Amino acid sequence: MLLYDSQVSGNCWKVRQLFAHLGIEYERRELSVIDRSGRRELLGELNPGLRVPTLVFDDGRSLGESNAITFYFAEGTPYLPDDRFERAQVLQWQFFEQYSHEPYIAVARFWAIAGITPPEAEREAKLRGGTAALRAMEAHLGDHEFLAGERYTIADIALYAYTHVAPEGGFELESYPAIRGWLDRVASQPGHIQITD
Amino acid sequence: MLLYDSQVSGNCWKVRQLFAHLGIEYERRELSVIDRSGRRELLGELNPGLRVPTLVFDDGRSLGESNAITFYFAEGTPYLPDDRFERAQVLQWQFFEQYSHEPYIAVARFWAIAGITPPEAEREAKLRGGTAALRAMEAHLGDHEFLAGERYTIADIALYAYTHVAPEGGFELESYPAIRGWLDRVASQPGHIQITD
Repeated sequence: MLLYDSQVSGNCWKVRQLFAHLGIEYERRELSVIDRSGRRELLGELNPGLRVPTLVFDDGRSLGESNAITFYFAEGTPYLPDDRFERAQVLQWQFFEQYSHEPYIAVARFWAIAGITPPEAEREAKLRGGTAALRAMEAHLGDHEFLAGERYTIADIALYAYTHVAPEGGFELESYPAIRGWLDRVASQPGHIQITD
Repeated sequence: MLLYDSQVSGNCWKVRQLFAHLGIEYERRELSVIDRSGRRELLGELNPGLRVPTLVFDDGRSLGESNAITFYFAEGTPYLPDDRFERAQVLQWQFFEQYSHEPYIAVARFWAIAGITPPEAEREAKLRGGTAALRAMEAHLGDHEFLAGERYTIADIALYAYTHVAPEGGFELESYPAIRGWLDRVASQPGHIQITD
């Protein structure tokens, strides 16, 4: 299989991390997340979002969206519960990540990586939204070892992706002890890989 | 079951539409999408996103995120394919909807409903993002009757929600004939309900 990938992208790391857990072999093709020219030509037929990660199977079928890809490969493995309600809780956290977490915390980090100085009002809006997401995680992780199903799943992989690099976007994690404990638990899973791997 | 709901919300309509198809009975409790005070007290223990829809089961368990809720209830019904890859394609379109469609098209409509006049640069950014999402849908629906699995699924319910009211946010659909044909096919499904129902 071929993974259109980016080494700095937390979304791509999710797929690489699950593949590492499962021992899945694949080829990586690096795309820039800063220069996006040529995305339509390259990914237009493969992924409506024109984003990385995009996965191309050996038979030519393709799949976009990091959380759809990990859901597909995690089915029937320890990384996705068999219980229907627990699977829905995994999805709840994955959708939370894409709507209420990534657009704030990942984008603030992207601005720092790309050397972009946004208007102050935009920077403050990112800080507000990202802080709300971290508070929601902190409240939940105060009572739970992992996000869903009381075990390490693709929900944890989804939220770890940009939470563990949140300080790069200006979100300090000192005041979130439950999140810090959870980050340590995720990082100590057998087969854990770095985003820079 | 109790659904924390909003009549103007396309995200809530997705759940009401699937429940109508499946003949599921539930109680609705209307929350304002404009005055969000009290959301933490009301939804804090139920849904980390503090958003509607939030569903509370009779045994007290709860689930947030419109697309996680519809995925849960669609399993084992005609509205979600049994095939693992087709289910992943449904998820791909649901995540596309939440990341690349809703933040532009639903928010532009929300501004119009709430009487908010955003800064011109923000309005243009919404228009650009929403247009990109509509173009991706138009390209796919030029070759397919429905978004995933070649049949009507919760992926179509997810994208119909805010696409059919996109003109309320300033997105005209005249130049998207494939989308307009698909909107008609979705609206002609047995048991189709209006967002205002």
